[in-house]
Amino acid sequence: MYVVQYSNDIIIIDCGSKFPDESLLGIDLIIPDISYLEENKDKIRALIVTHGHEDHIGGIPYFLKKLNVPIYATRFTLGLIELKLDEHRLQRDTELVLIDSNSNLQFGEIEVRFFKVNHSIPDCLGIVFHTPEGNIVHTGDFKFDLTPVDNQHSDIHKMAQIGSAGVVALISESTNAERPGSTPSEKLVGNHIEEAFKKANGKIFISTFASNVSRVQQVVDANIKTNRKLALLGRSMVNVVNVAMERGYVNIPDGMLIKAEEINQMSPENVTILCTGSQGEPLAALARLSTSSYRDASVLAGDTVILAAGPIPGNERNVTRIIDNLFKLGAEVIYGSGTGMHVSGHGYQEDLKLMLTLMKPKYFIPIHGEYRMLHQHRLLAESVGVEKENTFIINNGDVVDIQNLEARQTRKIPSGDTYIDGMGVGDVGDIVLRDRKQLSEDGMLVIVVTINKTERKIISSPDIISRGFVYVRDSESLLRNVERLVKNTVNEFLEENTRQRNVVKQNIKKSIGLYLFTHTKRKPMILPIIIEM
Amino acid sequence: MYVVQYSNDIIIIDCGSKFPDESLLGIDLIIPDISYLEENKDKIRALIVTHGHEDHIGGIPYFLKKLNVPIYATRFTLGLIELKLDEHRLQRDTELVLIDSNSNLQFGEIEVRFFKVNHSIPDCLGIVFHTPEGNIVHTGDFKFDLTPVDNQHSDIHKMAQIGSAGVVALISESTNAERPGSTPSEKLVGNHIEEAFKKANGKIFISTFASNVSRVQQVVDANIKTNRKLALLGRSMVNVVNVAMERGYVNIPDGMLIKAEEINQMSPENVTILCTGSQGEPLAALARLSTSSYRDASVLAGDTVILAAGPIPGNERNVTRIIDNLFKLGAEVIYGSGTGMHVSGHGYQEDLKLMLTLMKPKYFIPIHGEYRMLHQHRLLAESVGVEKENTFIINNGDVVDIQNLEARQTRKIPSGDTYIDGMGVGDVGDIVLRDRKQLSEDGMLVIVVTINKTERKIISSPDIISRGFVYVRDSESLLRNVERLVKNTVNEFLEENTRQRNVVKQNIKKSIGLYLFTHTKRKPMILPIIIEM
Repeated sequence: MYVVQYSNDIIIIDCGSKFPDESLLGIDLIIPDISYLEENKDKIRALIVTHGHEDHIGGIPYFLKKLNVPIYATRFTLGLIELKLDEHRLQRDTELVLIDSNSNLQFGEIEVRFFKVNHSIPDCLGIVFHTPEGNIVHTGDFKFDLTPVDNQHSDIHKMAQIGSAGVVALISESTNAERPGSTPSEKLVGNHIEEAFKKANGKIFISTFASNVSRVQQVVDANIKTNRKLALLGRSMVNVVNVAMERGYVNIPDGMLIKAEEINQMSPENVTILCTGSQGEPLAALARLSTSSYRDASVLAGDTVILAAGPIPGNERNVTRIIDNLFKLGAEVIYGSGTGMHVSGHGYQEDLKLMLTLMKPKYFIPIHGEYRMLHQHRLLAESVGVEKENTFIINNGDVVDIQNLEARQTRKIPSGDTYIDGMGVGDVGDIVLRDRKQLSEDGMLVIVVTINKTERKIISSPDIISRGFVYVRDSESLLRNVERLVKNTVNEFLEENTRQRNVVKQNIKKSIGLYLFTHTKRKPMILPIIIEM
Repeated sequence: MYVVQYSNDIIIIDCGSKFPDESLLGIDLIIPDISYLEENKDKIRALIVTHGHEDHIGGIPYFLKKLNVPIYATRFTLGLIELKLDEHRLQRDTELVLIDSNSNLQFGEIEVRFFKVNHSIPDCLGIVFHTPEGNIVHTGDFKFDLTPVDNQHSDIHKMAQIGSAGVVALISESTNAERPGSTPSEKLVGNHIEEAFKKANGKIFISTFASNVSRVQQVVDANIKTNRKLALLGRSMVNVVNVAMERGYVNIPDGMLIKAEEINQMSPENVTILCTGSQGEPLAALARLSTSSYRDASVLAGDTVILAAGPIPGNERNVTRIIDNLFKLGAEVIYGSGTGMHVSGHGYQEDLKLMLTLMKPKYFIPIHGEYRMLHQHRLLAESVGVEKENTFIINNGDVVDIQNLEARQTRKIPSGDTYIDGMGVGDVGDIVLRDRKQLSEDGMLVIVVTINKTERKIISSPDIISRGFVYVRDSESLLRNVERLVKNTVNEFLEENTRQRNVVKQNIKKSIGLYLFTHTKRKPMILPIIIEM
């Protein structure tokens, strides 16, 4: 999420979500902290969405629960946003405004125009903000595909005009700034799909991102040539392809689509199954097919399975586990970067340099990437003429102020990650996560001691309950020693008579913690509970 | 770990460890289940170790605590084994037997001979077992490097003779069975190191596997040419290089090595720091350098950092985080597969085909790799003439029996993973891990209810303690409702008078679980504790 502000007018660009890495135990999703926007809600004029990927729209349902802002997006993007709002069962009191690359919007003194870019989803926009302090360009996610499958070319001429008119600051994405050369055209994937389809004898299973409509179209085209029917498996595949069909982004001949239940009635060489799960998601169609636990279809010896998507970093293990299982089922599996079954939607170094060259910005703000990518993107900008000191590598919350065509990095606004865990938005923070980490590594021990307050003695033996620590059956003597140690610690407390309940709890934690670490090299969470009667 | 058995003689090949994936919460290390060997300990004649990598020697200290077996290995491998036994402070009552590729051992009716192979560590062996039922070859880990840095060539002529004499079964590693072509020579890395050293102005930090002695030698050689001193950072780098120096595997000129404390006294262009941590290990030297938390050395703007090692699958995120941090410090960072700073130690497809061609086995058992790699290796074997049905893709514990030159996959022996957690070996199993998983995702809630047995009523309010679930401060009303629900559930029980304590616990779990899931979509572990007075 990015924000452009001039005077009292705020325009928001995108509202994405990201997935937690493995250190954020139990967290489902991460969305941006929008407290700055909540404090300035009267100034917000629009949320403009560049395209329909999760990292650009995934935060919208949560955002709308806090702020009601009109959303501007192209037809396909709006389709995916509506799908998302339906899934969250959100009231539609939000204004959804349809725009295209020729739209011209005015918010206060900011005029907003657009240009078409290629990516891996239809209908993507770059944005130009014409402000009294100069023109600012946000590229969205892009590559230059000179032979786009859907014939929707990048607006290169328009970009050249924008650059000629003067750009004070370019904000450009950096995902592939480490990769030399130019991003291959999506059309190449089509050639490889067609080849594989012609070779295949049994059923074909092909998995890709549902939103990559051009790739879906190429599967349809290969299907036509090989005379196969097409079944869609997986909720998001069905939903997104429906949006694409309704809105005219994909062209599937009448009669080609069959229902999942019809797959088994078809002769194997006459059916293709297009499915979700190319990232190894454990509950998606491909994972379930790989373990033969999908009701309507089975991968059998002689079938072909194509993974037409590269694994996003972090998903490698889940994806390769599925590939292993598919091989065990006897399928021919086509996977990996050498097969040409996937190309990136993000520009490589030459694409990024072309954008920089067209826009000729005075200042440059590389975004969307890890630090090393932003750093490489800065070097690319330098190589095509941006002054070294005119690139700002900024963190979440950093503000770049532009005045009199001079840019400076100034304030920081509140920002960061808001964690979503189940229905909780932002209610899980560092303390809860630290506890989860300790619990996950060494488990816990609850120790309940009941004390007769008046007689000042322990009533019966302490209760000790452990989870995630050791097998209780194999650890009887260890736990008996813990019991004894607890009794001693509490008895000391009872004799001295002066200490607080908290002190005795601390002492139990300390002595038991030390004892267990010495004997097991583990540090379970210890929870002493003292009940006084 | 592999086992060759003939009649009453068992020979063990290797005894490795592996690292747990992220699903095995809190597990430190995995070693093989050796219960079959414990049951047959009187038959075990030898543990032969092919080379000194962790996945071949890491299980030895745990193995020796259960079984005392003479260990046969080459000089460098023995050096690393001794290092490991010292670290575990193990008594040395085990016989360590020095062998080389010309050794000839006899155990019962099995004669064992060896051949040299190249890999990414010195002194690697392949093994030939001459049995009355035919010759069996185990390759160890290998590639064919025709220009090895240490001039220790593979025994190709010997391999050809072995093949000519007849091999009934070849057991060969499959790590790179997916990669076409031949593995590049280690010597190429030396060229790239030298180039980078000549360009560098400030300090050079270079991180690689300590055991890749040829690469260490090439760093030394580049150091000589650029007139730099060398400091070693990280315990395993210091230890392993010492083993290599003592035993003559690396040649470092007198006076080149300096102590870590001397780094800061040197002019930056005259010092190279060779360090551990190329896999992103959070406590190793490189990670600490990247966060400026290493006492003796700092990465500064103008310094060069070279990652001369590819990330092992699963380590990518940790490695890239370090690269990001090094860039933030202003260093020139040389990383990634495009830089030529790493080559694999495992044979690509052409190497594997060459081994198969030399050995001409009747039967083939691909090992060491995920299923898809074993599958690809089978296809490679077919392509060079092994009958399709003569390849056995086997799992841990599977036995291939050979009699009258006919092989069949027959029994299964007990096998599997033994988890090491702290000092516990095998005491953490599925139940403990399942608990850890639940605790890690949604935390827990301990509910303590004290009941007056005679009056059959609750004494004071239930105590509720949560960890890793929600911020207590933000969730007061939720927890008050839990309290109320607990009271109701217990009171019902007290009125009915018939139920057991376990039943009321189950009911608390059920009602509170349902309530919390409805209101938070989380499923914390619920631990009810009932105390009757």
